[in-house]
Order: sequence, then C-alpha cells, then structure tokens
Amino acid sequence: MNVAAARSGTGVVAELFWEDLSPGRRFDLGVTEIDRDEMLAFARRFDPQWYHVDERLAAGSEYGGLIASGFFTVSLFMRAYVDGLLARAAAVASPGLEELRWLAPVRAGDRLAVTVEVVGQAPSHTKPDCGTVTLRGTMTRLAAPPEPTREALRTQFRGWFLRRR
Amino acid sequence: MNVAAARSGTGVVAELFWEDLSPGRRFDLGVTEIDRDEMLAFARRFDPQWYHVDERLAAGSEYGGLIASGFFTVSLFMRAYVDGLLARAAAVASPGLEELRWLAPVRAGDRLAVTVEVVGQAPSHTKPDCGTVTLRGTMTRLAAPPEPTREALRTQFRGWFLRRR
Repeated sequence: MNVAAARSGTGVVAELFWEDLSPGRRFDLGVTEIDRDEMLAFARRFDPQWYHVDERLAAGSEYGGLIASGFFTVSLFMRAYVDGLLARAAAVASPGLEELRWLAPVRAGDRLAVTVEVVGQAPSHTKPDCGTVTLRGTMTRLAAPPEPTREALRTQFRGWFLRRR
Repeated sequence: MNVAAARSGTGVVAELFWEDLSPGRRFDLGVTEIDRDEMLAFARRFDPQWYHVDERLAAGSEYGGLIASGFFTVSLFMRAYVDGLLARAAAVASPGLEELRWLAPVRAGDRLAVTVEVVGQAPSHTKPDCGTVTLRGTMTRLAAPPEPTREALRTQFRGWFLRRR
C-alpha cells in the first residue's frame, strides 16, 4: 500500500492514519438537526412502530408526540462521523458496534451535538498493514426549553485504519 | 394497563407478551432483498464512504463493486423485526444493542434470511408492568453462485415488553 496515496473513507488523499488515532483524541463532529419529514419517511420505511409513525397515538402517549427511530438517529451519527473524521482518515472498514444505547427520546427539530473519542488502539492481528481503533461516540440533545441538554445516544465501536508504515 | 387492549408495536391489539418470549423461542422473519437504488440512496445520505457510493473505485477494489452500508442492512433487519414480531407483540421500547456485527459484504440483489431468537428473559427492575427480553438477530445471505450462503449480520439487543399480569 502506497501510504502517500492512501485513500480516505470518502476517496480523497488521507491525512490521518492509525498512528494518529491515539486514546484520548477527541473529534467534534458538529451539530445535526432532526428534519421532521425525513425522520418520518425513515420510520415509515424501516421502523414503522406507532410512536415513530402515528401522530395521533404518539400525542396521546407518554411520549407526547412522535419520536425518532433509533436507527435514524444512529444513521445521522454515521453521517457526522463520515463528514468529520472518515473523510480525512485512511479508514478501511468496521467490524461492528460493541454497544449502542438510546438514552433519551429524539424529536423533530432537535439539535444533536456529535462527538467521537478514541478509547483504544491496537495492532491488527489479521491485517498487518492496519490497526484497530476503538471509538466512543455520543450525540447530545441540546437544550430546547423546557427540555434540558441531555445525552441521547452513546455508542462504542471499532474501526480498521491503515498504518503509516 | 389494560392488557386486553394492550397495543402491539404497530398499534393493533397485541397477542404476544413478555411471558410468551421465553429463551429458545425463535421467529423466522422472512427474506429481505437488497434493492440497488435504495441501497445507494441510503449510502449517499447517511454513509457516503467510497465503497458504498463510488462505483468506479469500488469496482477496482477488493470488494469488486459497491457494498451496502452496514446501517442500511441493520435498518432492513429492524423492518423485518417490526413486521414479523413487534407488529404482534406488546413492545414498549428498546434501550439499545449490546452487539452488532457485520460479518460479510452485502450487495445489490442479495437475499437475506432474517431470524430472531430469544436468549434471555428477566423482570424489569424499573418498570413493574414490563419485562426485559434479550434477543439475538441474524441476517443470512442466501447463496447466489458462486457466492455460498453466509451469515452477514449478527446482533444482540434488549427490548421491553408488557407483562400479561
């Protein structure tokens, strides 16, 4: 692998490699806003439970209105992770998530601040030109009075990244 | 909670309750086919990594062509789980996933057989009218010669379900 021309996750020249992703390094991935039409379209296709798609039932429930599918929320996390980190990093692939928790309801119009932090780094046993990085991601629902700021999503996952040498 | 009128995950009368979801019980959730246009649209919006969205780069890579975003695949798992189980069950919500693994690439046209099996059952400490169920889900990519049948996704997650009494 020619590191000088190694591709980032979005296909441009990578600037971040496995060695750069040391534990404690933290990336601010910006703020994502929940679009009502998209939230509803996603739920109708992938997660048509009543509290995601039926406004009348949701309004009369403990939720007080429609809440986002957790898979919509985590898909928005992924987009922020691609834009904010993988677009610059020599990312190879991910074997999966070790944890995914939905901690608070997410609603249309909510603004979620996204971060990711490196919590582990190890050479790969199966891919000698790669290393494994363990990351912890969060989405924090920003205050929208009377609702306070609250952690809405937490995940821990691994990714493979190319080594510099 | 009036159990006789308890709602299923899709808002109709529930027929399955926490007591019914005992360890070892297995549900066949049918076969999901991967639509190329939808796979690509999902990746462009939520996971625009080159091996999900750039046909030319993907064709010249180890993947030999575009592969699905893992979040598209797990969203299709969710849909099959709603249609095949939550539509009948007194489901309340899910706190999240304990594991999610992408084990083999998924491509346009692939057919994935979906199952879910109960692996644990416990009363809820925080919600006396509910119980917790731990489930293991799988998506198996059916043979498309020369590709053999292979497990493509595995997940373990918890759900809260209403008790009968």
